[in-house]
Amino acid sequence: MPQIHAARRALTQQKIAESGADGALITVPANVRYLSGLVSSNMAMLLPADGPALLGTDFRYAETAERDCPDLEIEIERQLEPALASLAAGRGWQTLAFEAHQLTVEQHSVLAALPDVPRLVPLGRVVEDLRTIKDETEIELLARACALTDLAFAAVLGAIRPGRSERELAILIERTMVDLGAECPAFDTIVASGPNGAIPHHSPGERVLQRGDLVTIDCGARHAGYHADMTRTVALGPPAPWQREIYDLVAAAQLAGVAAATPGADVGDVDATSRATIAAAGHGDHFGHGLGHGVGLEVHEAPMLGPGRTGKLKDRVPVTIEPGIYLPGKGGVRIEDTLVVRTAGPETLITTTKELLVL
Amino acid sequence: MPQIHAARRALTQQKIAESGADGALITVPANVRYLSGLVSSNMAMLLPADGPALLGTDFRYAETAERDCPDLEIEIERQLEPALASLAAGRGWQTLAFEAHQLTVEQHSVLAALPDVPRLVPLGRVVEDLRTIKDETEIELLARACALTDLAFAAVLGAIRPGRSERELAILIERTMVDLGAECPAFDTIVASGPNGAIPHHSPGERVLQRGDLVTIDCGARHAGYHADMTRTVALGPPAPWQREIYDLVAAAQLAGVAAATPGADVGDVDATSRATIAAAGHGDHFGHGLGHGVGLEVHEAPMLGPGRTGKLKDRVPVTIEPGIYLPGKGGVRIEDTLVVRTAGPETLITTTKELLVL
Repeated sequence: MPQIHAARRALTQQKIAESGADGALITVPANVRYLSGLVSSNMAMLLPADGPALLGTDFRYAETAERDCPDLEIEIERQLEPALASLAAGRGWQTLAFEAHQLTVEQHSVLAALPDVPRLVPLGRVVEDLRTIKDETEIELLARACALTDLAFAAVLGAIRPGRSERELAILIERTMVDLGAECPAFDTIVASGPNGAIPHHSPGERVLQRGDLVTIDCGARHAGYHADMTRTVALGPPAPWQREIYDLVAAAQLAGVAAATPGADVGDVDATSRATIAAAGHGDHFGHGLGHGVGLEVHEAPMLGPGRTGKLKDRVPVTIEPGIYLPGKGGVRIEDTLVVRTAGPETLITTTKELLVL
Repeated sequence: MPQIHAARRALTQQKIAESGADGALITVPANVRYLSGLVSSNMAMLLPADGPALLGTDFRYAETAERDCPDLEIEIERQLEPALASLAAGRGWQTLAFEAHQLTVEQHSVLAALPDVPRLVPLGRVVEDLRTIKDETEIELLARACALTDLAFAAVLGAIRPGRSERELAILIERTMVDLGAECPAFDTIVASGPNGAIPHHSPGERVLQRGDLVTIDCGARHAGYHADMTRTVALGPPAPWQREIYDLVAAAQLAGVAAATPGADVGDVDATSRATIAAAGHGDHFGHGLGHGVGLEVHEAPMLGPGRTGKLKDRVPVTIEPGIYLPGKGGVRIEDTLVVRTAGPETLITTTKELLVL
């Protein structure tokens, strides 16, 4: 799909031109992939405000780059940043924009010391901002990642039972996603059972699931570089009243968040709408993280939805909505969907039920 | 093992004191883990030149930090760098060292704009340098990671046969490592068959293994945070003369590299010794990467062994030795061990045979 990448580069080049820079050095891996289509652990792009782009990668990826990026000039170097900045200097550029949120202080020092190097100015999150709004091809890839996640969750439901360890269950979910066609898990699967459910990012361990537990499972498949993200909490055996109470609260908060995620909505307001449900029940202190985040070529990307966050949602922006209640020493509940903000209303890509599953 | 981490901090504090800084902000994840024992995706440490250290992490890891780091003061914040730098300012520090090879230009700008912030000076790779020399506990963990890798390779040998795809084989190896007890693969497994063997970092795909292929498998298990790294190339059916020739060359180069990896040896010289074997046979242009790298809490860490690299190997430094020959369009061979540089001679942690296996 070289024409898709060319179109993305053209949009980025408009922004570079508007900034007054002669070009930009793109070094955020997901941004380089977005603009080139290359998948590599070492790549960068020199993108002029006007004219053809140059893709840099190293010897290991030379054949892949030539195959996958036939429309790009390719530069093979090990140390890409100084090599590409030197090329910019050789072209007589006066100003080179760079991604200050990715380039290290040390890398910047190396560039600043090059002969005739252009003036280095921060580009800002220009490519990340472009990436927030997905085209329909991207949404299809993300939808497939979410469908694989739903399928894997359904396939392992029968295995979520007392006697199995958190780690065994996490491994089973990840393998099931891959067996169904995912390229890999989108992130390390979380399985948090019983009191571990109070730890939002619990690392699944040797604890064995027990009757009476709530079990929170946060997992996702990656498909063609796009990351699904889903969380469900299930009960092993009939839930205790406190378990049912916090489940229903989180479910209501999650639905309120989904309903609020409309084009034009402020990301802080969406968070506040969902959070109000939990706070009104006295659990405001037990929901310590933001409501959600964008997803795409990175599992956490713009926009962030949370207290103090600013900005408006737009049509075709995929986000997660994932409120939770965490009771230290007792357990917790989190419910999370990946959905696409749409003018016609939220398009939920995760379709697993949000009714409390009692296993 | 809090006393191990305290001893590591004491050594780091000596270096900070020698640099003249009042303290350091440690932000490289592997460095923070090395100095604290915490495993977290968001952590940082404020380490004074003298006195107790402060460990920062966020809400998600608060319980884990309290459990695993009982000897450390713990600060819970979402944005750790400015929070810890502000604490340094509050203590009246004049100079704060930071890891310029990790902190981004943007993060640095945020710190520099804080009220009363100390003068920010690069710390350099002080902690990475300490990390190169492993204690015996670390070497035991690395040896276990390597043993799991050997065991997994042996277990899948029977499955390396015509008809199986590269990707199927890569998945089988990774699952076998985990089933044997690895916490996860140390990196994405490479399976490069036939002509794909000419691509050093080939991503395993749908190509089906065929009789007559050389198949290069680069894999490793991670155990307790320590990364094994091993490569073997096998033949499917009797090797053609060119396959046998490049295999024998790479094997000889690998043995020469291992023999040269002694305390006091220059890292460039070790590379040159191994490379000479390949170059003498006219394949110098077909070995385009460095000879090896340190391994430990990161899969690629100091020291790097390659042309133009400087520095001396020391006792108790684990490194890989991994020469290769890559013939575009035809195939390739790479052979890699993880070993420990020792005064008594190299301690090879990978024990899988380096004879050409004909399957």
